[in-house]
Amino acid sequence: MFVNRRTVAIEWGDCDPAGIVFYPRYFAMFDASTAALFAAALGMTKFQMLRHYDIIGIPMVDTGAKFSVPSKFGDVITIESQISEFRRSSFSVAHRVFREGETLAIEAHETRVWAGRHPDDPNKIKGFPIPQEVIEKLSQ
Amino acid sequence: MFVNRRTVAIEWGDCDPAGIVFYPRYFAMFDASTAALFAAALGMTKFQMLRHYDIIGIPMVDTGAKFSVPSKFGDVITIESQISEFRRSSFSVAHRVFREGETLAIEAHETRVWAGRHPDDPNKIKGFPIPQEVIEKLSQ
Amino acid sequence: MFVNRRTVAIEWGDCDPAGIVFYPRYFAMFDASTAALFAAALGMTKFQMLRHYDIIGIPMVDTGAKFSVPSKFGDVITIESQISEFRRSSFSVAHRVFREGETLAIEAHETRVWAGRHPDDPNKIKGFPIPQEVIEKLSQ
Amino acid sequence: MFVNRRTVAIEWGDCDPAGIVFYPRYFAMFDASTAALFAAALGMTKFQMLRHYDIIGIPMVDTGAKFSVPSKFGDVITIESQISEFRRSSFSVAHRVFREGETLAIEAHETRVWAGRHPDDPNKIKGFPIPQEVIEKLSQ
Repeated sequence: MFVNRRTVAIEWGDCDPAGIVFYPRYFAMFDASTAALFAAALGMTKFQMLRHYDIIGIPMVDTGAKFSVPSKFGDVITIESQISEFRRSSFSVAHRVFREGETLAIEAHETRVWAGRHPDDPNKIKGFPIPQEVIEKLSQ
Repeated sequence: MFVNRRTVAIEWGDCDPAGIVFYPRYFAMFDASTAALFAAALGMTKFQMLRHYDIIGIPMVDTGAKFSVPSKFGDVITIESQISEFRRSSFSVAHRVFREGETLAIEAHETRVWAGRHPDDPNKIKGFPIPQEVIEKLSQ
Repeated sequence: MFVNRRTVAIEWGDCDPAGIVFYPRYFAMFDASTAALFAAALGMTKFQMLRHYDIIGIPMVDTGAKFSVPSKFGDVITIESQISEFRRSSFSVAHRVFREGETLAIEAHETRVWAGRHPDDPNKIKGFPIPQEVIEKLSQ
Repeated sequence: MFVNRRTVAIEWGDCDPAGIVFYPRYFAMFDASTAALFAAALGMTKFQMLRHYDIIGIPMVDTGAKFSVPSKFGDVITIESQISEFRRSSFSVAHRVFREGETLAIEAHETRVWAGRHPDDPNKIKGFPIPQEVIEKLSQ
């Protein structure tokens, strides 16, 4: 599978009164990491991807994370992301966070839907088949 | 002018490693306070207001705040909001934050636009005249 | 088990370009919901709880959520929270989110540690036994 | 004055239902930009700076921003930051945001305090004189 790695500097505003990352911030980082994974594999930004494939987003249906090692502001973490499974109109992503390049600090997983506007009701969203070229580029 | 007051409990996740509110969180609270001000005066949620008046939002063009007294998690603050000025397609809002009902902790101001989709380019937004009934209900 | 319910109004700033809640915001809401659960059962704020029991926090070690029904800004959700298990120095929390009082929209779980400063290294944290009175009050 | 520039990619989660950056997110970016300014000038992270100079933070006392051009997710902005004035125990910072390297999109200013723990009450904070070497390195 195609793997994308990016580094994230932990900012003061990411951290809570205990001095460590407020964990909902990690989920925002993972959301950006999934966008970066698709961007790197497809060669276009997420914004361009939504337009190109005429979808409204890739909403989350199931996510979870195990936090083994906390990070504090000033730390730099590496987030490694890859698709763990493609299904017809949904897919799973695995993220692994490393501290100082080596220590596995967090493992997270996501299940998302390839979603467009519902043809019968523009206020609703609906899963659509993931294009074969998307699957291929992220499976290399 | 119509005045709206709401109380906000400061949460752990609103605070930074110094144990006090991370100030960008106040701006999110003020954004919700402006929405609550319109909702209270118009008798509809901001969501309904956007649909009813066919606008896309009330985007910020200028804002500022003076922080006199910090708040920490566990504190409950009161945010008092009112329109300070209406212009043709823009308006200003004043927020005052009180600690324990008495101490003035923050003073903030906003200038926003009553904005809809640009008739010539749906990807752009454009200021529209604020409806007279909106001005009247918020001026009572 | 002691159950706490609270309502949360979904704000404009909680939502993403698809118009629905940006899911990391739910985790911030759940963090506040766990704080509210302890506050309701113990009769003190989380701030007072940390001081009273001399702990530094209740950091997350494992969390996950299934999102069945999206919410958009203007919606009001009810979050129902309770302890699902107490262990020696850790505990699990279950959150259920309801739309309009009836539709189950999200199910989430958390495992957290009752954590204080490490006696040998004040820069580290360590799990401590959960006080019996805390267990009792949350188990009623 | 020492000037620091950094680029920030606008993420999906930074944006609101109108598809543009939710403005409180800019303040979080500016907070990180001020930290990056000091880090670049002093050659240490903000975390190290707080330890080295024995301060608890550089809390905000006054900030404001004018938003001229909105940014949407997928955009990359450049934030240019510099000290605009040093006083005894406080200082001001100016941020300018550029779209595509040329268009001035936002102008923001901050006044912050060089703050440590109050010697008489560790729960309070107090302004301390800004060290001369800090002033010199940021004035180059």
